[in-house]
Amino acid sequence: MRITVLVGGVGGARFLQGVRTLPCDVTAIVNTGDDVALHGLQICPDLDSVMYTLGGAADDERGWGRQGETWAVSRELADYGAEAPWFSLGDKDIATHLIRTQMLNAGYGLSSVTKALCQRWEPGVEMLPMSDDRVETHVLVDDDGTQRAIHFQEWWVRHRGELAAQRFIFTGAAESQPAPGVLSAIATADVVLIAPSNPVVSIAPILAVPGIREALRNGKAPVIGVSGIIDKAVVRGMADKCLTSIGVEVSAQGVGELYGARSADGLLDAWLVDTTDDGVEVPGVAVHSCPLWMSSPEATRKIVEAGLETVGIRP
Amino acid sequence: MRITVLVGGVGGARFLQGVRTLPCDVTAIVNTGDDVALHGLQICPDLDSVMYTLGGAADDERGWGRQGETWAVSRELADYGAEAPWFSLGDKDIATHLIRTQMLNAGYGLSSVTKALCQRWEPGVEMLPMSDDRVETHVLVDDDGTQRAIHFQEWWVRHRGELAAQRFIFTGAAESQPAPGVLSAIATADVVLIAPSNPVVSIAPILAVPGIREALRNGKAPVIGVSGIIDKAVVRGMADKCLTSIGVEVSAQGVGELYGARSADGLLDAWLVDTTDDGVEVPGVAVHSCPLWMSSPEATRKIVEAGLETVGIRP
Repeated sequence: MRITVLVGGVGGARFLQGVRTLPCDVTAIVNTGDDVALHGLQICPDLDSVMYTLGGAADDERGWGRQGETWAVSRELADYGAEAPWFSLGDKDIATHLIRTQMLNAGYGLSSVTKALCQRWEPGVEMLPMSDDRVETHVLVDDDGTQRAIHFQEWWVRHRGELAAQRFIFTGAAESQPAPGVLSAIATADVVLIAPSNPVVSIAPILAVPGIREALRNGKAPVIGVSGIIDKAVVRGMADKCLTSIGVEVSAQGVGELYGARSADGLLDAWLVDTTDDGVEVPGVAVHSCPLWMSSPEATRKIVEAGLETVGIRP
Repeated sequence: MRITVLVGGVGGARFLQGVRTLPCDVTAIVNTGDDVALHGLQICPDLDSVMYTLGGAADDERGWGRQGETWAVSRELADYGAEAPWFSLGDKDIATHLIRTQMLNAGYGLSSVTKALCQRWEPGVEMLPMSDDRVETHVLVDDDGTQRAIHFQEWWVRHRGELAAQRFIFTGAAESQPAPGVLSAIATADVVLIAPSNPVVSIAPILAVPGIREALRNGKAPVIGVSGIIDKAVVRGMADKCLTSIGVEVSAQGVGELYGARSADGLLDAWLVDTTDDGVEVPGVAVHSCPLWMSSPEATRKIVEAGLETVGIRP
């Protein structure tokens, strides 16, 4: 059986830790809208979060980056007065970016580079960037009365999401293509899962790549979403700020409606919400409630199994 | 008074520590034949040795790189199985290479990049790369009966100069131009010094850039060489292996003859040798002996003053 999962970074990685315990071929289509070029390095935060987490090398306490990380290069870059001192790059992490950037500059696509990096990390799932083309999430902010667009990382890391976001723009998305393997991973899937990642800045950029939304809508596989909002609060990250800024209620109900029913030009066949959110209703979508806390890969596996059961699939 | 100095790396840097104590404008024309691109980074060992040493940030005990250096990125690159694990790049050093590479890729010339980096290090001398063009010293070696050309760093660092060198080739030199400022630094100098750097792989690449040798030969400034060979032994580095491979005796006499008299299509007006090498004679060159051990900037300053005196100049 083949499961294809749309994921962002940390939350998506944790979700995949559960999915990969199932006896299935798992393909992860990973958001690259967070990607940023700094110091000449191409940095792919979500791909790396997934890769390090599934490779057993992530720092779970800090919630991002590598275990046992050091920061000598970043300190030195700051001493040079280099750009973006608010974006700390770990030394181990920089090795990944060096290899990635060198391969990209040599002409390899991001999907090939990701495959090469994964030879070391053996994530146990096939990892595909959503696109080999450069797509960057920019945030339109109101900065003391002046509207300007800043890179998602500047909004997220530098301003901690505190500048009111008016809109999220997936720069380059309209001209991008799905990475090799993405459309076939959707077309040949037995089931597609939408991880409990940030709907606005992790899942939406993936859906903004032309062809992906259509593939999901027209594919044979049922699409099951898992809510990242439990009891009207985000489990991690800043989805609340993102949802509010686009006028969507921070709730399992709100996100379920945002995704919408596949039968009504939306995305979902089924929507998993936490037991505390019992009573959510999305027209045309089978809503099922179960405990959604991903406290362990086993707990997450049960979430996935509950989702599969909702659409009548047994792995 | 203006002094222009041709230098390689560590020995050249130490020489400049003495030269800059004189009340003169000092310009260093630095070898870039050692430069190497690794992991997508443009690495300039001689420029960095000079910059770090004059900036007070060099590790004098190790003899290269930065004080208090760490090696996290290199270890990680090795764990990825990346190229050239024999070439250790320090974490602090990598910050320099990142900034340099980013500026080069943005279109700045190496001389502009060097100037920008020096804003932090304040070396007290004007540092000019010999050329903004890519020139790389390659070494023709006999590897178990097969002739092949390898990068100088591979010969120097990986093989510790132990593969018999048949020839040194300054790839790209013939098509290169002197960096902006190089020819005028020679033309407007009151004196030109050849540092006691490796004649074969530090000074020769500089001379291989079309126009530089002619500028030295035709300039108004006397050219004073300082021997890096004392009592038939190299003070540091592997000049002995380099000289032997091109059939030049490892001695102050041998190197003096290699450089030759300016009046006879060579380079030198004067040649400073150590007191232990008293008796060296190079036709057409004023040979002067004095203690050449650069035990301190003050000792080195005395060497330079002795050289200036040889050609009748008082700083």
